[in-house]
Amino acid sequence: MALVIYHLEQSRSDRIIWLAEELGLEYELVRFKRDPQTRRAEPALRQHHPLGKAPVIRDGDTLVFESGAIVEYLLVRHGKGRLAPAHGSVEWPLYVQWLHFAEGSAMFQLVLDLFLSGAFGGGPPSPAAPQVRESSREMLAFLDRELGSRPYFAGEEFSAADLMMTLPIRAAGAYQLLGGLANLQAHQERIRERPAHQRAMKIAE
Amino acid sequence: MALVIYHLEQSRSDRIIWLAEELGLEYELVRFKRDPQTRRAEPALRQHHPLGKAPVIRDGDTLVFESGAIVEYLLVRHGKGRLAPAHGSVEWPLYVQWLHFAEGSAMFQLVLDLFLSGAFGGGPPSPAAPQVRESSREMLAFLDRELGSRPYFAGEEFSAADLMMTLPIRAAGAYQLLGGLANLQAHQERIRERPAHQRAMKIAE
Repeated sequence: MALVIYHLEQSRSDRIIWLAEELGLEYELVRFKRDPQTRRAEPALRQHHPLGKAPVIRDGDTLVFESGAIVEYLLVRHGKGRLAPAHGSVEWPLYVQWLHFAEGSAMFQLVLDLFLSGAFGGGPPSPAAPQVRESSREMLAFLDRELGSRPYFAGEEFSAADLMMTLPIRAAGAYQLLGGLANLQAHQERIRERPAHQRAMKIAE
Repeated sequence: MALVIYHLEQSRSDRIIWLAEELGLEYELVRFKRDPQTRRAEPALRQHHPLGKAPVIRDGDTLVFESGAIVEYLLVRHGKGRLAPAHGSVEWPLYVQWLHFAEGSAMFQLVLDLFLSGAFGGGPPSPAAPQVRESSREMLAFLDRELGSRPYFAGEEFSAADLMMTLPIRAAGAYQLLGGLANLQAHQERIRERPAHQRAMKIAE
């Protein structure tokens, strides 16, 4: 089997398993646990990612880390045109925008919010916490408006942009920030109905 | 002129100007200022990006935001194969990895570090600050080792991965975190010698 997914429990590697299931790829799954106290990955993961992070994949001799990069890699090398609009389409600019936005803006915003509020890392809330929380709410309201005119981030069809965006939407839900955002909630309902997603979440447990 | 770059002073939009200069694209530059007190973009930027952020570009009827997405968009639609290795090459997985790592991991790590240390947003350092600073140093040491075996992130040739990675490396330098990291310093020297970079930094001022 050429493709190996190095999977850390409760991490961003869930969505790489999900992508492999969407594409029907054969893969070997190598599992890593978090330290129950520190939540850090077990040290053995550093054999594959020098910073001890997930996801990482190996495809033959090629090692790739970083979620968005792995998604692009798997689609280009094994996707056969699935889950991404063609470069010349009107959907493609939206697709590439949300593919990058998921980590570059959305996860960044939400994780910063949680650190500054003291939810991660401890300590009292930072003086910057209220303004950062306001920015989180503003961002989520914008995402909700975007999905008011189409079911998926890049248009009428599910794409890897939805797969990337699901993590920040789910994180926002876990922190009680999706109240009243019906379009984001409906998007997540559509995601949960996907058989590949259901299989992947079981495998990732 | 079909391409418009909406440029916010002292922001990530510097590198979109730089990319346009590297590619020799014609573009119109529309400039926005930051509020001297709050450092936020002037409200007019919200006409182009609903969250008031930069960079944003318009190419005919197509609006694209998010740095990594704009870079991919400009290379696919106007790059004619320049500044990115071919999909089938051994360099391409490295290229796409560092293209995403720049914002998804590196800027995330450094901005989180600066917020938690109190350098952005004020307040005393978070209890998590020392561990996050250790992770920043570990990440930068890893980047420095990567450039020990090749001059650019994707191999022997300058690519848009270097353009994306320059922002976090420069941010690390501004916060005195590049001491002893000779390969990262040499990378930035090579970047500063590029005529397109020199033109862009003057234009972006």
